[in-house]
Amino acid sequence: MKKHKVVAAVCMILCFAAGSLGADELAETVALHQQSLDMIWLLLAAALVFFMQAGFAMVEIGLTRAKNSGNIIMKNLMDFSVGALFYWAIGWALMYGTSYAGLFGFSQFFITDADPVLFRDWMFQVVFAATAATIVSGAMAERTKFSAYLIYSVIISAVIYPISGHWIWGGGWLGNLGFHDFAGSTVVHSVGGWAALMGSLALGPRIGKYVVSGKTTTSKAILGHNLPLASLGVFILWFGWYGFNAGSTLSGTDLSMASVAVTTTIAASAGAVGAMAVSWMKFKKPDVSMSLNGALAGLVGITAPTAVVTPTGAVLIGLIAGLIVVYSVEIIDKKFHVDDPVGAISVHGICGVWGTLAVGLFGATDDIRGLFYGGGFHQLFVQLIGVVAVAAWVIITTGILFAVIKKFKGLRVTETEELQGLDLSEHNAEAYSGFQIFTTM
Amino acid sequence: MKKHKVVAAVCMILCFAAGSLGADELAETVALHQQSLDMIWLLLAAALVFFMQAGFAMVEIGLTRAKNSGNIIMKNLMDFSVGALFYWAIGWALMYGTSYAGLFGFSQFFITDADPVLFRDWMFQVVFAATAATIVSGAMAERTKFSAYLIYSVIISAVIYPISGHWIWGGGWLGNLGFHDFAGSTVVHSVGGWAALMGSLALGPRIGKYVVSGKTTTSKAILGHNLPLASLGVFILWFGWYGFNAGSTLSGTDLSMASVAVTTTIAASAGAVGAMAVSWMKFKKPDVSMSLNGALAGLVGITAPTAVVTPTGAVLIGLIAGLIVVYSVEIIDKKFHVDDPVGAISVHGICGVWGTLAVGLFGATDDIRGLFYGGGFHQLFVQLIGVVAVAAWVIITTGILFAVIKKFKGLRVTETEELQGLDLSEHNAEAYSGFQIFTTM
Amino acid sequence: MKKHKVVAAVCMILCFAAGSLGADELAETVALHQQSLDMIWLLLAAALVFFMQAGFAMVEIGLTRAKNSGNIIMKNLMDFSVGALFYWAIGWALMYGTSYAGLFGFSQFFITDADPVLFRDWMFQVVFAATAATIVSGAMAERTKFSAYLIYSVIISAVIYPISGHWIWGGGWLGNLGFHDFAGSTVVHSVGGWAALMGSLALGPRIGKYVVSGKTTTSKAILGHNLPLASLGVFILWFGWYGFNAGSTLSGTDLSMASVAVTTTIAASAGAVGAMAVSWMKFKKPDVSMSLNGALAGLVGITAPTAVVTPTGAVLIGLIAGLIVVYSVEIIDKKFHVDDPVGAISVHGICGVWGTLAVGLFGATDDIRGLFYGGGFHQLFVQLIGVVAVAAWVIITTGILFAVIKKFKGLRVTETEELQGLDLSEHNAEAYSGFQIFTTM
Repeated sequence: MKKHKVVAAVCMILCFAAGSLGADELAETVALHQQSLDMIWLLLAAALVFFMQAGFAMVEIGLTRAKNSGNIIMKNLMDFSVGALFYWAIGWALMYGTSYAGLFGFSQFFITDADPVLFRDWMFQVVFAATAATIVSGAMAERTKFSAYLIYSVIISAVIYPISGHWIWGGGWLGNLGFHDFAGSTVVHSVGGWAALMGSLALGPRIGKYVVSGKTTTSKAILGHNLPLASLGVFILWFGWYGFNAGSTLSGTDLSMASVAVTTTIAASAGAVGAMAVSWMKFKKPDVSMSLNGALAGLVGITAPTAVVTPTGAVLIGLIAGLIVVYSVEIIDKKFHVDDPVGAISVHGICGVWGTLAVGLFGATDDIRGLFYGGGFHQLFVQLIGVVAVAAWVIITTGILFAVIKKFKGLRVTETEELQGLDLSEHNAEAYSGFQIFTTM
Repeated sequence: MKKHKVVAAVCMILCFAAGSLGADELAETVALHQQSLDMIWLLLAAALVFFMQAGFAMVEIGLTRAKNSGNIIMKNLMDFSVGALFYWAIGWALMYGTSYAGLFGFSQFFITDADPVLFRDWMFQVVFAATAATIVSGAMAERTKFSAYLIYSVIISAVIYPISGHWIWGGGWLGNLGFHDFAGSTVVHSVGGWAALMGSLALGPRIGKYVVSGKTTTSKAILGHNLPLASLGVFILWFGWYGFNAGSTLSGTDLSMASVAVTTTIAASAGAVGAMAVSWMKFKKPDVSMSLNGALAGLVGITAPTAVVTPTGAVLIGLIAGLIVVYSVEIIDKKFHVDDPVGAISVHGICGVWGTLAVGLFGATDDIRGLFYGGGFHQLFVQLIGVVAVAAWVIITTGILFAVIKKFKGLRVTETEELQGLDLSEHNAEAYSGFQIFTTM
Repeated sequence: MKKHKVVAAVCMILCFAAGSLGADELAETVALHQQSLDMIWLLLAAALVFFMQAGFAMVEIGLTRAKNSGNIIMKNLMDFSVGALFYWAIGWALMYGTSYAGLFGFSQFFITDADPVLFRDWMFQVVFAATAATIVSGAMAERTKFSAYLIYSVIISAVIYPISGHWIWGGGWLGNLGFHDFAGSTVVHSVGGWAALMGSLALGPRIGKYVVSGKTTTSKAILGHNLPLASLGVFILWFGWYGFNAGSTLSGTDLSMASVAVTTTIAASAGAVGAMAVSWMKFKKPDVSMSLNGALAGLVGITAPTAVVTPTGAVLIGLIAGLIVVYSVEIIDKKFHVDDPVGAISVHGICGVWGTLAVGLFGATDDIRGLFYGGGFHQLFVQLIGVVAVAAWVIITTGILFAVIKKFKGLRVTETEELQGLDLSEHNAEAYSGFQIFTTM
């Protein structure tokens, strides 16, 4: 009898008193660590994605004219600020609330429940919503009425982005169909890209952009005023993209975050190299802003497939994205005469489509296997359905939205205001007031 | 007998050999993971807060004139560099050393002890100390003698900030009283704000800022020369604030970091929207630099209450901070004729007070319950004591400090130097040397 | 008999069912957390180091003339983009593949193996490789043919950097000798610095830099056009350095990361203060760009010894680095007439040597004990061997490389192109196109 007690006691000592922690307590601590790893990973990733707002602002400022810089700052600041408030009030509920027939969510308005996991997930998602909204700002730069832009910004963050987002990430019909978009080539970038297209079409080109002479329309380059800031913006975006893509594992213990970081890195690199090479061949000189856009194109392209492709696949996806963006910018400008000052439609829209389809071509995992890796046409077809459905949704809704704004409020500033610059006309500000005044020069 | 041994052996195998780790070893590993989670969280948060120095530099450069940019760079660089050395030698000891009657600490000078936890905590705290110091730089911009500024910078980092910091975070009397300042609305921002006020008063306004004609004094706007850099600075500060606030959980496994990140985000957003709206109403156009300052005002305002308020509370706190900052900037400039080139007194001082009091209004936890959440006036009263005590401490000490510097050394450059710009007169530099010289233009 | 079963059952319940996790499962989870901590730490550190590319770009743009900014952007973007692709294809294999006699690695080309740990390690290493490549860009600024630069960039990332890196970090002969370079004062910075020296020598000085009159050669200052961007770059580099140094623990549970962060912080601070003080004495005014370079000098200096020195040691190392950089810049320019527009040879090369030797002077751990801490001359001697060996390797290989490029392709643009600026001549771009055109001014 005594011996049994000794055995039991020894056992209990071994079990419970391992380094002062009891077994129960130990297991609880380990469970807390799991939550903590997820929490730290997602919050830091969210902070990185937030910082992409600075990147967008710098890219757009750099690639447009000095007289509109203050206006671009306001659009970017408000895309996030207004967007976050509405994504808190409404957007999250439509995207991640209880699903109605896989079409939209409808619960958790105003995130009132004080659950750390819900707070964490909202935090990670709001920065994606704001990214989609901000993409449009560049395409609509230098001619949009600020108050009209604010209305657009509210609607995309509160309604348009969340609903197609619900289809794919929120438990909706596209996700259920097997559509794969790891970090948002379609959910975020194509949504922004299509909205950018519709905004640009609704506005028409900037004054002086296209010169019509007889039957020929000539496109004039309107150069950006600050390439150093544009390059800073691209580096910031690339930096933030590690949060965007690797954070989209949604778990701090999903070790595939490493391959995501690697494929993201080399796709971006290949995109920059690809765009540089093509621009070099086409224009005889390696083009700075094309190369910068090439890096972004590679990043947008790898966003959907990043977790399911090999490094070699990533190089090819990025390289092709770099080629696409140069031709797409040319065609949209010179063939279709759509005025997109920063190339947002090409970088985010077209390359977003490319990245989404690339899943169906280069997917190399058991679950997601693309055409080139022996998976046949199935995944590619599903990806195509998603591309078309989201394009249709965004083109129709933003088409209506911009038409309504145009009709009832006006979307564009006056000619005088545009020539004067939106900083003065819309904000009574100068971005570089008295820049040049040195008393001793 | 044999059976007992078998039972014991089985038990030991189960206990010890769980996946090659013994129970002791397992518990040790789990304990190390706890330390590691805290370490990673606090070091990365510290890095983010460090990066806020870049944000302050860009905001201050952007909102002042080109001829003083080099001087602002030097002040910001030295605020951190000189400040870190003195916070290492003296500041930490006064803030976190063994407490003398709750008034100041006095041990651990020069952090000689090689303990990872002490190193970690110093690292997290030094970036806060440097933030307080840097706030003042903006209010004293464009007219302060650099050597005089260095003296101020040493004293605030080594003595003034650490002592009021000790009262609240270092085991001092205010903390013991129940004063709650989660991440430093008072500890950091109000301290910086009051010092900014005293510095600005001691200096007097910039030449040309106020025109006196008979009995009326007219305030002239002296516009900043680089809004794009100012906006970049605000985005960097907002980004860094995730380290500032969420890092202030001081633990990598405190899951309330998620609600901190969320309330920080929406308070900043509401601040930007609030300031935009008020400026729109007051000036007929949405003001760029006011909106940027509104985001900062929301961030400063949420810094104290971030961990104890609901999202709705955060929206209100941010919104009100956004309103306050616009009126405060106006009143300080046009009523009191205090020349604060970047609005530091309003953003950090006044909104720091607002955030501190907001704890007593919007606190919604069991421990910290404010007036609007059924907690009565108690917490609000305690918060008010802290606000007044810290204001008195900083106003008196920096008042004496600037008076002494003024008397024995001189605080301000000469009129000639000021007109010439401090870059040339103080540093023999030009921030934008030959900027405009293009050979082919 | 029954009692034994009860004992066994109780024991199993205690062991297995601790908070729903079984013992095996618990141990597996803990093992996963270890991997996850390493993963999160290294990926976030890698992202921070990646961001240093933005810092280098801003520093180099800021310290050179506006007419070459676009070219600098392209060099920096391609250093990373081309470099990453070649470090993926070849560089990693030479650096970390199976060692041939400790001289170079030779396996794992194209990183085809899909192992999270390998992906993670590649990700952390590629950003270091790109840093070494980018250092050279500044010294060769304003006169290098872009296509020639690309060839250099490929070779250093694919071959030169990986091989000396193998010697030290890849299991090669220098590491085996006891050479200590924690985060790369030699591996990264000196390699970049020596390549910068050879590039600058091969190119010759910029037009107008040295004026020869009889027997005397006078050095003319060619001032940078954007100190605000240069300062932003320094802050970004400092921020990224927390990833560079603290990440080099290579483990998320190595708590010495705290002392690394602390020594890094105060060495950088001391470097800035030291350079400011020396420049103040030499030039009568505290110099802005020298102080900025002083911070970088302190960072480069502390990179090798960061993990083995005390805070006091770090202050001294940083302070001396700050002194060195001022004199080194002067001597290289005015004595040797080597034209290094941004001071890269001094900051990265000379201070890299200083930091490497400082290990042998200030090392204060049991393993690495320097001369000043009772360790005698042994470690210092080993460090010296490493410095000489790597210097010889890089000087010889890059010397040949630049000579070959010069002979068969040409390394430098024409005089006309240089005067026009490389933006227009090499890229048909203007960095600040139409910057000044405001319609209402």
